[in-house]
Amino acid sequence: MTTNVGIVGFRGYSGAELVGILTRHGKTEPWLMEHRAESGERPRPIGQEAPDRIPATVQAAREAAIRAVFLATPPEVSIELAPGFLEAGIKVIDLSGAFRLKTVENYLKWYKEPHGQPRWLADAVYGLPEFYRGAIPAAELLSNPGCYPTAANIAIRPLVRAGIMDRAAGIVCDAKSGVSGAGRKPSLKTSFCEAAGNFSVYSVLDHRHVPEVLMNSGVDEGEFCFTAQLIPVDRGILETIYFRTRRLESTEELVQLYRKAYAGEPFVRIYPAGALPDLRDVARTNYCDIGCRFDAATGRAVVVSAIDNLVKGAAGQAVQNMNLMFGFAETEGLV
Amino acid sequence: MTTNVGIVGFRGYSGAELVGILTRHGKTEPWLMEHRAESGERPRPIGQEAPDRIPATVQAAREAAIRAVFLATPPEVSIELAPGFLEAGIKVIDLSGAFRLKTVENYLKWYKEPHGQPRWLADAVYGLPEFYRGAIPAAELLSNPGCYPTAANIAIRPLVRAGIMDRAAGIVCDAKSGVSGAGRKPSLKTSFCEAAGNFSVYSVLDHRHVPEVLMNSGVDEGEFCFTAQLIPVDRGILETIYFRTRRLESTEELVQLYRKAYAGEPFVRIYPAGALPDLRDVARTNYCDIGCRFDAATGRAVVVSAIDNLVKGAAGQAVQNMNLMFGFAETEGLV
Amino acid sequence: MTTNVGIVGFRGYSGAELVGILTRHGKTEPWLMEHRAESGERPRPIGQEAPDRIPATVQAAREAAIRAVFLATPPEVSIELAPGFLEAGIKVIDLSGAFRLKTVENYLKWYKEPHGQPRWLADAVYGLPEFYRGAIPAAELLSNPGCYPTAANIAIRPLVRAGIMDRAAGIVCDAKSGVSGAGRKPSLKTSFCEAAGNFSVYSVLDHRHVPEVLMNSGVDEGEFCFTAQLIPVDRGILETIYFRTRRLESTEELVQLYRKAYAGEPFVRIYPAGALPDLRDVARTNYCDIGCRFDAATGRAVVVSAIDNLVKGAAGQAVQNMNLMFGFAETEGLV
Amino acid sequence: MTTNVGIVGFRGYSGAELVGILTRHGKTEPWLMEHRAESGERPRPIGQEAPDRIPATVQAAREAAIRAVFLATPPEVSIELAPGFLEAGIKVIDLSGAFRLKTVENYLKWYKEPHGQPRWLADAVYGLPEFYRGAIPAAELLSNPGCYPTAANIAIRPLVRAGIMDRAAGIVCDAKSGVSGAGRKPSLKTSFCEAAGNFSVYSVLDHRHVPEVLMNSGVDEGEFCFTAQLIPVDRGILETIYFRTRRLESTEELVQLYRKAYAGEPFVRIYPAGALPDLRDVARTNYCDIGCRFDAATGRAVVVSAIDNLVKGAAGQAVQNMNLMFGFAETEGLV
Repeated sequence: MTTNVGIVGFRGYSGAELVGILTRHGKTEPWLMEHRAESGERPRPIGQEAPDRIPATVQAAREAAIRAVFLATPPEVSIELAPGFLEAGIKVIDLSGAFRLKTVENYLKWYKEPHGQPRWLADAVYGLPEFYRGAIPAAELLSNPGCYPTAANIAIRPLVRAGIMDRAAGIVCDAKSGVSGAGRKPSLKTSFCEAAGNFSVYSVLDHRHVPEVLMNSGVDEGEFCFTAQLIPVDRGILETIYFRTRRLESTEELVQLYRKAYAGEPFVRIYPAGALPDLRDVARTNYCDIGCRFDAATGRAVVVSAIDNLVKGAAGQAVQNMNLMFGFAETEGLV
Repeated sequence: MTTNVGIVGFRGYSGAELVGILTRHGKTEPWLMEHRAESGERPRPIGQEAPDRIPATVQAAREAAIRAVFLATPPEVSIELAPGFLEAGIKVIDLSGAFRLKTVENYLKWYKEPHGQPRWLADAVYGLPEFYRGAIPAAELLSNPGCYPTAANIAIRPLVRAGIMDRAAGIVCDAKSGVSGAGRKPSLKTSFCEAAGNFSVYSVLDHRHVPEVLMNSGVDEGEFCFTAQLIPVDRGILETIYFRTRRLESTEELVQLYRKAYAGEPFVRIYPAGALPDLRDVARTNYCDIGCRFDAATGRAVVVSAIDNLVKGAAGQAVQNMNLMFGFAETEGLV
Repeated sequence: MTTNVGIVGFRGYSGAELVGILTRHGKTEPWLMEHRAESGERPRPIGQEAPDRIPATVQAAREAAIRAVFLATPPEVSIELAPGFLEAGIKVIDLSGAFRLKTVENYLKWYKEPHGQPRWLADAVYGLPEFYRGAIPAAELLSNPGCYPTAANIAIRPLVRAGIMDRAAGIVCDAKSGVSGAGRKPSLKTSFCEAAGNFSVYSVLDHRHVPEVLMNSGVDEGEFCFTAQLIPVDRGILETIYFRTRRLESTEELVQLYRKAYAGEPFVRIYPAGALPDLRDVARTNYCDIGCRFDAATGRAVVVSAIDNLVKGAAGQAVQNMNLMFGFAETEGLV
Repeated sequence: MTTNVGIVGFRGYSGAELVGILTRHGKTEPWLMEHRAESGERPRPIGQEAPDRIPATVQAAREAAIRAVFLATPPEVSIELAPGFLEAGIKVIDLSGAFRLKTVENYLKWYKEPHGQPRWLADAVYGLPEFYRGAIPAAELLSNPGCYPTAANIAIRPLVRAGIMDRAAGIVCDAKSGVSGAGRKPSLKTSFCEAAGNFSVYSVLDHRHVPEVLMNSGVDEGEFCFTAQLIPVDRGILETIYFRTRRLESTEELVQLYRKAYAGEPFVRIYPAGALPDLRDVARTNYCDIGCRFDAATGRAVVVSAIDNLVKGAAGQAVQNMNLMFGFAETEGLV
C-alpha cells in the first residue's frame, strides 16, 4: 500500500527533482498539483507513465487521499497555500524559506515582507534530520532547510560545540552554488551566455539564508561572514569555511570530531585527513560530504562542505524528512 | 580624422561585439544610439571611456555627424528605423534579416510578416564580400548576411560552380551554433541549466536562413536539407556539409578547388587535406575556415565550414562591409 | 539470493557506470576485478560499502562464484581475457569492439590489428536486444554494441525494412558524442581547455563503428555516410540522420512506422510529430529516444536518435543484456 | 623598426597567449624558440603567417638579433636557460616561479628543490608594475609574478598600508582559478569529464604562490590563509578576500582608498560601491578589477579581485613589463 503525496511547483528544478525521487520511492505515489503554470514545461514524453495531475486545492487533495503536500514554491505561495492543507489535516513539507525563521520580525528583516501566518511560523519544525530527528516525526508543517544553510550548519555546529574555534576572530563561509540554485525562471544572470565561462559573487554578507545558520549552528551574527557565488555548473554547492583554532593539534583530531558528531548518520560522510570532497562526489546524491585541514604553523583550519543543492539542499532532504514523518526507512528512495 | 558611426542595439551580443571592434578600429569613432532599453546592461564600468550616447534618431545622428548606422536590432525594428536614416543620406548597415531577401513575397513566406519597405528591400546590397565585393562600396543600405548562410554559402558556391556535386542526390547541411546566436533576451531554452550539458535540434528544414543560401550559393530548394542545432558554447558555428560527388578523385582536388576560389581572400582559410577546422580555430576572429574530405570508395565528400557567429557571422562581417563602403583597408579593426 | 558478477575495467567511465548500476540492481552482487591499475582512481570514499576486489583471474572468479564477467576494457584486453573465463564456464559480456564483427578479415580492416580468437569472434552474440532478443539468453559471449551504432541501428533499420528510403541518394548520419566517449585516459583532445567552448569533427567516413551499422541495419557501405563529432558535454550521443524518402506522405506516417517497429520495447521512446529528443531527455537513462520530421515540399526526412553513451550506449545496455541472459526482468536496475 | 623578441614554451597556454599579444604589438617581432616539443601542437594553420622558428639557444638568438627572451617554461627549464641568455646580454622575462623568491632557502621551502642560480635569484626584479615600476626598466632578469599573487597583492597591499585591517584576526583569501592555470599537459584532474560540472579545492594553505603574497603585500605568514580552487572555465581568477576592519566606516571609504592607491594605473579598475567584478569583466584583458563591500553591523569587509590568469596573470603582464623595459608605451599591444 502506497502513500499518496502531492507536489506543487513540479516544473521548477526542485520540484522536478522531487518528482524523480518520489517516482523511484517504494512507498509513495506522487501526484502533480497544478497551481499556476508560469514556467514552461518540457513539451515531450519524459517517461511511459507520468504521475496524475490534479489542482493544488484542498478538495482535490482530499479526493486523491493525499496525506502530504510538498510545496516547491516561492515563499509567498507557500504562505498562501500551506494553512489550507494543514487545517484539512494534510501534512505540508515546504521547500521555500516561508517557515524557516521563528518570528515575524526576523522574517520581515531578511525577507523584506510581512509574514501573514505567525502561528504556523512558530509551529513549523525545521527539517534538518541530523540536528532535529526527534522532532520531525510529529511535524505537521515541516520547513525544509535552505541549501546553503544545510551545508554550513552540518559543517559548523560540531566546531561550535567542541569549542575549538576562536570565534572572536570570525568564521568565514565562502559559498559557491550551481546555477539551478537561482530557480528555473529565465533571467539574464542565469542565461547560458552570461553564466558559462564566468564566476561571480552575488551576495555579500546579506544573504537571506544567513539567519538559518545563526539559528541552528550556534555562531553569532557578528562572528559570521558569508558570501554566495555562482559557479558555471548546473547543480552543487561547495562551501569553504575558515577559522582560527583553539586547542586543536592536528587534522586527524578534526576528522575524529566530525566522525563522532555524525556517527550513524546515513547521509553525512567525513573524509580522511588529506582528502577533500568536490561537487562530483555528491552530485545527484543526498550526501553532505565534509573534509578538513588544519595547519599547525598558523593555527588555522579550513573545512570543505559539499552537497547537491537540489538533493540534500532541497528535494532529497525533503524526502528524507517525509520518510521520518511517515515512519519509512530514512534512506528510502535516496542514494 | 575619424568617421563617426552609430550603433543601435548595442546591448545585444552582436551589438556589443560591434562596439568592441569599432573601439579598436583605427578609422572610426562609435556612438551608442539608444532605441529602447529592453535588455539589461552590465551595471559596471567596462573600460575607462565608454562611447558617447545619443538617441537613435535622424536628428541626433546628424548632429553627431554620423555617416553610417549599424542596426543590431530585430527585423521589425530595422524596417522601422532604416528608411529614415537612408533618406537623410546616412548609410545603414543592417545586421538583421530585414533586407536580405529580395521580394516582399519571399519575406512573407520565411519571416511570416508583411514587409512595409519593398523599395529598400529591392535596393539593399547583400554584404557577403567574398561574393559581392564589387557592389558593396556603392551600397546605401547594406544587408549583412545571416550567420548560418555565411558559413554555408562560402562552402557551397564553389562546389556548385565546379559542377562536382550530384545535386539530385541532395546536399545536407548539418549546422550547429553556439547559444549567443539566439540573442541576449532571456528564455528557458537559452538558460544555463537547460543548455549546459545538452545538445538539441531546434530547426529542421524550415529555418529562415535557408533562402539566403538558396539565393546566393546556386543550390535549389528541393536539393537542400538544412538543420539548425544548439551547442553548449557561447559562440561559434560549425556546419558539416555532405554530398555525393561527380568527377572528383581526391581530397586534394577539393582543397585546390577551394584554394583557387578564395585566392587572395583575407578572411577565408582553406585547410590542407587531412585537417578540419573546429570552433576554437575561428573563435573571436573574422575567418571562415574550411576543411574537406573525399572518400573514393563511396564517392562521397564532407566539407566542414566554421565561423564565429558574432564576428564573421555578424559584427565582424558588418565592419568588413563598412571598410569596403568607406574605402578603408578591408581588414582594418579585424583579426 | 543474488548472482555474483565481476567487472574488469571498473575505473573507466563505462566500468564506473556499470558499478553504479549493478550496485542498485536487486539481483546481483558486483565484484571489482583488478587487471592493471593504469588510470587513476578517485582517492576517496564514494559510498558506505564499496564492492569487494579480486584479481581478474579465472581462479579468483571461481572462488567468488562469479557467473558473469563484464569486460569494460580495450579490445586487445578483452581478446586476452575473454577466452579464459568462457572456457571456465563463466559468461562474458564484453563492452569493447573485440567481438562485434563476425570475421577476422573485417576486424583487421576496421581495427587494423589481427584477431587471435576467430572462434569466439564467430560465436559472439551481438547484444542489441531490440533486434536480437531471441539469441541473447543463450549467449556465452555477449558482445555489447558500440555507442554510435546503437543509436544508428535503432533509427535506421525500420526505415530500411519499410523501404521508404531512396537508398541510392545516400543516408547521412551526422553523429555527435559527449567527451566520455573517448575514455578516461587523459589526452590533449579531451582536456578541459581544448574541449570546452569547442566543437570538432574527429572522424569522417572511416570510424570503426561504421561496420556495426552496415551489419545490423541493412544499409550498404556505398550508401552510408557517417561523421563523428565531439560536443562539450560529458555524456550523450545525438545522431541526426538524413535521407530522401520514397512513398512517404507525412511525419505522422513515419512516427507510426517507428511506433509499430518498437511496440512493447521498454527502452525505445518514439516522439510525437513536432517533438525531437535532446541529450537531457536521455541523460543517465537507458532509453533510446527517436523523433522525426518529413518535409513534403522536398521529399526529405530527418530522424533524430539520442542515447546516453555510457548507459544505453554501454553499461546500461550491458546490464539489459545480462538481465536477458539470466532471466531477470529486462528493466531491472535500469531507469 | 621593430624589436626582435623570442618565446620559449610557445605551445603552452601562457606561451600561446604571448604569441598572440606580441603579434598584435606594434613595436616587436616575435620569434618562436624551440626547446623541447613535449606537448602537442594544433596541427593546422592558425593564421596566414606564423612567426619564424629558431632553436632556443644563445647562438640562434644572437643571429636573429633577439633582444629579449620570454620563458614560458617550468621553473627548472627557466633556471637552466636564463643564465645563458643573460650572460649574452639578452634580457630575460621569466613567467615561471624560478626567480620570484629572493633566497635559495625560501625557494627550497616552497618549490621543494634546490636552486642552482642564487646570484640571478637575488638580482631578478619582481615585475609587478603597480608596485615596482621604478625598478623594472633597468631589469636584466625580470621575474613575472604568479597569477594568484597578482590578484592578491594588488587587492591587499593598500589595506595593509592604510592600517585598516585587524591583522591578528587573519586575512582569508579564497582563490578560484580557471583550468588553464594548471597548464596544457594532459592530466586526469584537468580532463573535460572530471573538471566540467565540478568545483574542487586543490590547495589549502600550502600553495607555492603564498610566499609571493607575503613578500609583496605586507601581511605576515601567520595572518594569511589561502586556498586555491578549480572553476570549470578555461581562464580567469577571482579571489574573495575577507578581513575584520579597524577604523573603517563605509564601503565608499574603501573604494576611495583603492582609487587613491591606483590613481593613474592603466590596468587597475576600481568598482564603485555596490558593484563587484566577475570573470567576464576581465576575460582576455590585462585589467585587474577590484570591488569591495563593508558591513557596518559586523565590522567585516570583503574585497573581490579578478584578473585573466593568462593575461594580467601571465602573458599580458609580461608584455606590460617588456614595454617598461624597452621604453614602449606601457599599454602597447594590451587591452
